Amino acid sequence: MSYRLDETASGVYVIAVTPFTDAGLVDEASIDRVVEFYLERGVTGITILGMMGEAHKLTSDESRQVMNRYLARVDGRVPVVVGVSQPGTDPLVAFAKEAMDAGAAGVMLAPVNTLRTEEQIQGYFSGVLDRLGSVPVVLQDYPFVTGVNISVDTLRVIFDRYANVVMLKHEDWPGHSKLTRLRASAGRQVSILVGNGGLYLPQELARGAYGAMTGFAYPEMLVEVCAHFARGNADLGEDLFDIYLPLLRHEAQPVIGIALRKELLRRRGAIASAHVRSPGPRLSAEDHRELDRLVERQHRRLAGASLAAA
Amino acid sequence: MSYRLDETASGVYVIAVTPFTDAGLVDEASIDRVVEFYLERGVTGITILGMMGEAHKLTSDESRQVMNRYLARVDGRVPVVVGVSQPGTDPLVAFAKEAMDAGAAGVMLAPVNTLRTEEQIQGYFSGVLDRLGSVPVVLQDYPFVTGVNISVDTLRVIFDRYANVVMLKHEDWPGHSKLTRLRASAGRQVSILVGNGGLYLPQELARGAYGAMTGFAYPEMLVEVCAHFARGNADLGEDLFDIYLPLLRHEAQPVIGIALRKELLRRRGAIASAHVRSPGPRLSAEDHRELDRLVERQHRRLAGASLAAA
Amino acid sequence: MSYRLDETASGVYVIAVTPFTDAGLVDEASIDRVVEFYLERGVTGITILGMMGEAHKLTSDESRQVMNRYLARVDGRVPVVVGVSQPGTDPLVAFAKEAMDAGAAGVMLAPVNTLRTEEQIQGYFSGVLDRLGSVPVVLQDYPFVTGVNISVDTLRVIFDRYANVVMLKHEDWPGHSKLTRLRASAGRQVSILVGNGGLYLPQELARGAYGAMTGFAYPEMLVEVCAHFARGNADLGEDLFDIYLPLLRHEAQPVIGIALRKELLRRRGAIASAHVRSPGPRLSAEDHRELDRLVERQHRRLAGASLAAA
Amino acid sequence: MSYRLDETASGVYVIAVTPFTDAGLVDEASIDRVVEFYLERGVTGITILGMMGEAHKLTSDESRQVMNRYLARVDGRVPVVVGVSQPGTDPLVAFAKEAMDAGAAGVMLAPVNTLRTEEQIQGYFSGVLDRLGSVPVVLQDYPFVTGVNISVDTLRVIFDRYANVVMLKHEDWPGHSKLTRLRASAGRQVSILVGNGGLYLPQELARGAYGAMTGFAYPEMLVEVCAHFARGNADLGEDLFDIYLPLLRHEAQPVIGIALRKELLRRRGAIASAHVRSPGPRLSAEDHRELDRLVERQHRRLAGASLAAA
Repeated sequence: MSYRLDETASGVYVIAVTPFTDAGLVDEASIDRVVEFYLERGVTGITILGMMGEAHKLTSDESRQVMNRYLARVDGRVPVVVGVSQPGTDPLVAFAKEAMDAGAAGVMLAPVNTLRTEEQIQGYFSGVLDRLGSVPVVLQDYPFVTGVNISVDTLRVIFDRYANVVMLKHEDWPGHSKLTRLRASAGRQVSILVGNGGLYLPQELARGAYGAMTGFAYPEMLVEVCAHFARGNADLGEDLFDIYLPLLRHEAQPVIGIALRKELLRRRGAIASAHVRSPGPRLSAEDHRELDRLVERQHRRLAGASLAAA
Repeated sequence: MSYRLDETASGVYVIAVTPFTDAGLVDEASIDRVVEFYLERGVTGITILGMMGEAHKLTSDESRQVMNRYLARVDGRVPVVVGVSQPGTDPLVAFAKEAMDAGAAGVMLAPVNTLRTEEQIQGYFSGVLDRLGSVPVVLQDYPFVTGVNISVDTLRVIFDRYANVVMLKHEDWPGHSKLTRLRASAGRQVSILVGNGGLYLPQELARGAYGAMTGFAYPEMLVEVCAHFARGNADLGEDLFDIYLPLLRHEAQPVIGIALRKELLRRRGAIASAHVRSPGPRLSAEDHRELDRLVERQHRRLAGASLAAA
Repeated sequence: MSYRLDETASGVYVIAVTPFTDAGLVDEASIDRVVEFYLERGVTGITILGMMGEAHKLTSDESRQVMNRYLARVDGRVPVVVGVSQPGTDPLVAFAKEAMDAGAAGVMLAPVNTLRTEEQIQGYFSGVLDRLGSVPVVLQDYPFVTGVNISVDTLRVIFDRYANVVMLKHEDWPGHSKLTRLRASAGRQVSILVGNGGLYLPQELARGAYGAMTGFAYPEMLVEVCAHFARGNADLGEDLFDIYLPLLRHEAQPVIGIALRKELLRRRGAIASAHVRSPGPRLSAEDHRELDRLVERQHRRLAGASLAAA
Repeated sequence: MSYRLDETASGVYVIAVTPFTDAGLVDEASIDRVVEFYLERGVTGITILGMMGEAHKLTSDESRQVMNRYLARVDGRVPVVVGVSQPGTDPLVAFAKEAMDAGAAGVMLAPVNTLRTEEQIQGYFSGVLDRLGSVPVVLQDYPFVTGVNISVDTLRVIFDRYANVVMLKHEDWPGHSKLTRLRASAGRQVSILVGNGGLYLPQELARGAYGAMTGFAYPEMLVEVCAHFARGNADLGEDLFDIYLPLLRHEAQPVIGIALRKELLRRRGAIASAHVRSPGPRLSAEDHRELDRLVERQHRRLAGASLAAA
């Protein structure tokens, strides 16, 4: 069967990496492996070809290859969202339709980085959304990377005008108040999953987020935290979150973050190589030792928490 | 025969548009037409798939299509430089090699927009240039668009280390002193062609530029100005330039510039449609009237100048 | 008598430099001299302590000194607008009131550079304008420098809500369509004077600008062009403008522009020293020779135009 | 007695707030109170008039007032560093000298936000440092706010050329590798205190930082963590840090961070009002409840840790 993303989506849609071989080629076997890794940890869905999926460093053909392999391996077990952001509207729309035909549950769309006024922002999204028709869309709001600041008012205009925008990937920063205002605003409500590496996940769930769409290398924590909050156990959820916070904060660093995440996934057996495509960061021996220590401390805290719980 | 760009290149390498049909498809017939238009106006070379060639709004396949059609039509009559800038090094290098195999005289390369320190800039270019091997490279220095500021020192390091960097597309702004310092600096000299819409062409030729690499819709002016300067007739060259300056200044505006340029080329019969791909500017009725007036005034000045010369 | 700026203001409000001695101190004698220079050339008003007035490099005391000297010398002969932009609202409002008490006709205000969404922009201006009460305000819209993009919609909200905003200094870029839309929009109309070094003055007057607020070192040209347009002689005005365009385009360069302008004013006897405060540009020998040539060519064209007119 | 900052400085130099009354005036009584608050918590030194000290929203006179009151109250008990960054070099140098005359231990200096190439950065600092002579200087490296990226090479050039630069406030982001490279680089070593809200303090101490210069509302944690690391008890230090991390991460948010910090200091009795000058953030009821919860959870964790230690 084939999922179709809608406004009720919640839980954890993990931002998936694009695995490469050490030589820099798309590693299809590791796509298969990381899919199983994510599913075993209980994610609700998988988002591929996002910014942390190094989508912008792939050719059109490679993007298609990665998408098809992910979709084939997932094989309808969970919904898959496909990032389609790119500078030109024509190729964007063509790729989005291709993704839906191939079985995607929806597509993710960030604004191009030249937009400034709200009229320009609304104009851009109208131009794309009119052509996407009924394709379910996740709007990615990530000013730190895109340079485009989308106000609550503009989001409301878009949500109310375009029924196919079913989800917001919320990663404005600072963004807690924006989340509160969005949830409190009159009009059509969409699902709000939070990004930003999950750095404020408990606060954001408390303010009404539906879940997370981010790619921390320990997605089982994100899954459990969201589940605790969904069951009304905010304190249990936040206790667990805080155990992971030191490493999460480390992985959430810009630039080097993708290299740390891939290295952690490699250590956990999810992918064969931590290779990041050029131009991109490389980890030094010092970076590795630092990571060792943070991981070891996390294990110790988790063991302590289990003892305490026992 | 096949040209190979080198450090002696001079004259006018026109920045070519990518013509689309009104429906937004690549218009191969107009590629043929605009090639003849450029050649009839005496350009030394043609640069395709640059920023004003809307390269970033094409799929990989369309880029290949545009490149092949341009190369086929030019058919060795002048050197063709192919813009290859893109976020990922792997696809960039693959496309550059494809371009050379297809008969390009060289490739043009701008830095990715995330580079900040000179070490990062040098690191980026080293990473790409090492892999490009002997492919002749034009380094595009355009901080207004890329956000990357490359110092004279860093350019010197690159020129002295990489013999395949044979040309600088100079469009730093303000940039006159940089040009003077580059020409005065010890070490290997490369060709310097100026961009920036040609807004300071006479000043830059006087400071040692070898010519222009820009896309004004009246390339015959650029050609004549460069020829006058090459023959030592700076005043004649600048007199001619000044006649065109009002319209050139108008076309050199950011954002709307590409729409003005395409409309002028359409009016001159060089392409069938002025279509700019989305997201992109559209001309209003007011914009058209304003353009009418500027063109008419230019014709009048040119007629007056001929009378004066007669 | 004391002027009060209102919505009918037109003509040329010259952006005045802040003259320093070679040692970098405020040069009060040159303030006196440049006031006479501007008045002799027929300007309608004078705007002091703007960005090109190096206001941000003055202490609070020096700003006060410059303001008082300018106001004293002008002595009510023309309206004086005082730039009051600064990061803190409290000092800004205090200085604005001080300026009005000292005899200013109004104050000029640009947004702080941290604003992004229109709600933030409106919030900022509301916060300041509420406190400025009845002080006549010129809103400076200069995204290239402030990084803040103000839409036509937001400008309309501000104009309609705050009757004390009587003028827009329009220097968005590209900005012709914005000007047309502002003039065509329903609601309270304010005076629109154009900045941007005057680079598009004829086009902007044709689209409904009321005049210019910029600081070209030959303000007599701005004055005459505006007068020609006001009398319906657009062609005469634009012919004159085009004669000055090569030098105007040169002076309008970012960064080095203020050094070129001060040097031209020094050569014309308007100020004693071309000193620009640190950090700031310095002219090289090459820069001076280039300027010599542009000035000489301008003189020649002007002489030619007189002959033709004779 | 009067301190003089030198290269051996270590520990915690707390970034001090500028307290205002609810009406927005400088609150001298709260300056006295917050000085005692900081000293009671064991800080090594105090840094005033930094970015989080809202220095840019003060008049020249108010800056002087705040500086004098802080210096008078501290009265030589710990060294005081005075932020002097401002756009003009002349007022900057004058204020720095005034600060030293009044008893400051040194001054802090960030680059102006227009610098791009390393030559420009070196040129700026040379221009200022030459004039500051023997005044001890803390160089603030905070690209996230200044937009200026200073490479390790450029820092080395400055450190080796200017003996009066005795400290680096390190807050590049990501910045761990930069810290390692700085400490490993040959040449004169300066003190390195870390900023960035202290978000990576344990990692940075492990990589060779000398301490912290930041303004978390619980400076006692920063003091203890640095002390543990200095005594070789990295694990104890990091355990303590991790207890505070959830709240520290919350306070370290951009824009709203200063409001959260001031509110926490108000709650702790260190200042009378949490007023932030306009333009600036305001806390909502929801923001207050969120803060309540984070503080309460921190208390609980601290209590649990004491029990465990008992």
